[in-house]
Amino acid sequence: MRSITALRELFEDELKSIHFSGAPKELYEPFSYMLGLGGKRMRPVMLLHAAEMFGADATSAMPQALAIELFHNFTLIHDDIMDNAPLRRGLPTVHKKFNSPVAILSGDAMLVTAYKYLVQSEPSVLARLINIFNDCAIKVCEGQQLDMNFETAETLDAAGYLNMIELKTATLIASSLKIGAMIGGASAEDAEHLYNFGKHLGISFQLKDDWLDSFGSAAKFGKQPGGDIIQNKKTFLLIEAMNSVDEVLKPELQYWYRQQQFDPQVKVAAVVRIFNELGISELTQLETAKHFDKSMEHIEQLSLPESHKTGLRQLSHNLLHRES
Amino acid sequence: MRSITALRELFEDELKSIHFSGAPKELYEPFSYMLGLGGKRMRPVMLLHAAEMFGADATSAMPQALAIELFHNFTLIHDDIMDNAPLRRGLPTVHKKFNSPVAILSGDAMLVTAYKYLVQSEPSVLARLINIFNDCAIKVCEGQQLDMNFETAETLDAAGYLNMIELKTATLIASSLKIGAMIGGASAEDAEHLYNFGKHLGISFQLKDDWLDSFGSAAKFGKQPGGDIIQNKKTFLLIEAMNSVDEVLKPELQYWYRQQQFDPQVKVAAVVRIFNELGISELTQLETAKHFDKSMEHIEQLSLPESHKTGLRQLSHNLLHRES
Repeated sequence: MRSITALRELFEDELKSIHFSGAPKELYEPFSYMLGLGGKRMRPVMLLHAAEMFGADATSAMPQALAIELFHNFTLIHDDIMDNAPLRRGLPTVHKKFNSPVAILSGDAMLVTAYKYLVQSEPSVLARLINIFNDCAIKVCEGQQLDMNFETAETLDAAGYLNMIELKTATLIASSLKIGAMIGGASAEDAEHLYNFGKHLGISFQLKDDWLDSFGSAAKFGKQPGGDIIQNKKTFLLIEAMNSVDEVLKPELQYWYRQQQFDPQVKVAAVVRIFNELGISELTQLETAKHFDKSMEHIEQLSLPESHKTGLRQLSHNLLHRES
Repeated sequence: MRSITALRELFEDELKSIHFSGAPKELYEPFSYMLGLGGKRMRPVMLLHAAEMFGADATSAMPQALAIELFHNFTLIHDDIMDNAPLRRGLPTVHKKFNSPVAILSGDAMLVTAYKYLVQSEPSVLARLINIFNDCAIKVCEGQQLDMNFETAETLDAAGYLNMIELKTATLIASSLKIGAMIGGASAEDAEHLYNFGKHLGISFQLKDDWLDSFGSAAKFGKQPGGDIIQNKKTFLLIEAMNSVDEVLKPELQYWYRQQQFDPQVKVAAVVRIFNELGISELTQLETAKHFDKSMEHIEQLSLPESHKTGLRQLSHNLLHRES
């Protein structure tokens, strides 16, 4: 079995060897631009690792890993248009770098290209893999729609938020792992354990992301710290704060939520202080740990030797203890 | 074999029986809205007819027919955003009725749903059908990008235009027929003849569409007559006129092309008169007939009894001689 680092290099090398260079160039330039922005390649690496856990060589799962990474990037391109996001990883988003019609269309072409890789699966698993991929893709769309609905919703609860991030974020991690497991020849039970491991890991991953925005070390944190606070993003933190705030702090939280003109640093400091007074950091860490623990239980239950489980445990701990 | 009319009814009944009613509703409402705008259902009906030509019952090709219609409607939703089109079939386009983020996202979900139907194919043809569908989908994206490029291009020629409409319009008709033929169990040669029949029919269909905008009977014509002229759309007619215009008419054609403020009726009448003086109507009809004749040659070459070819010939003639 390759190490996670080796799998990431293997995947990066494969990705770099592909030249998406069809005509017209306007359609394909965003492919290299977007994929060139980098990223942890978490989903394809997990897929490849899952395949190796069950005895396959990672190279045999490369088309599906590429399909997952292309799908993920397609969602980022379209989400950035919908969210009107100017930057991704510190550089202009595809619709800002090119324009919105090109971003819509090359996103579409990227989704179709994902299916072009996916169809390179063995006939014996082809229909099942496409079904998993389709179900996942629909859920990701549903999650993004819920996320958009949240921005204008009057009241929200934590359960609704957890459902949204499960659909929008966790399902793709879960499905990547399940696809890898199936390519590796895992039993239906083990494939399901890996799916549920990925689901709970994905939820804890997103909760950690929310937490880092307010409580992460700004220096090591790539994104603008407090960006969610500045934009009034309905994260787990803000939803829990809104639902637990007392009469004393409520006017202040609402003031910052409604204020149109403000010094960003002052707003971030004020809202973080409210979060602290309400114990939101601990509450979020508790919920994160709950889902992380559930994900670990599913690793326990895999019918594999312990030595085959260490990679996934290590990867999970790295994700949970990351500082950016 | 069912008649074309019977196949259209069969398809409409099937479409009406499906309720795209998942959650959140914002994602799925555009499905019923868009599919409810109607249309000739030309592509799925051709797919079903092709399947029956080779001995299958149309009902066995229904999932693929639905996949094709969903794909077609997905392209219309996204194209309307890119083209900033306010109306489709006289009613607000999806992004006007709802909003652009919803139109982008439900278009995405519609494309994925197309794959959900497509994957319901027999294992023996599944990979081949998805490959045809993927290749077609990429070409449609390339055609749309070329079409967008054309709007700002300085010079264009007829060959470039014909290539664009082949990609954007004809390929989907061709692929629908090929998929139907393969479900019917056609030989590779016959499937290819149906593909090429559809390709040339699709090109002549689009040329006829261009021609109808300037020379169709306004009364029977659903769209605004002269709409392409008003919008300076780079159709076969305008491209040929620009490339064949003499020094006398050139200033007038350029005047109307550049004029920002004008009475639409006056512009349409003036440009149609220039088209007439340049013989553009005849030239377009000639090119239309050329591709129509090529399409008929591919019907000739099908290894099927003559009685099995009459439906396709009738359908083609109806398309060519339509007045709207």
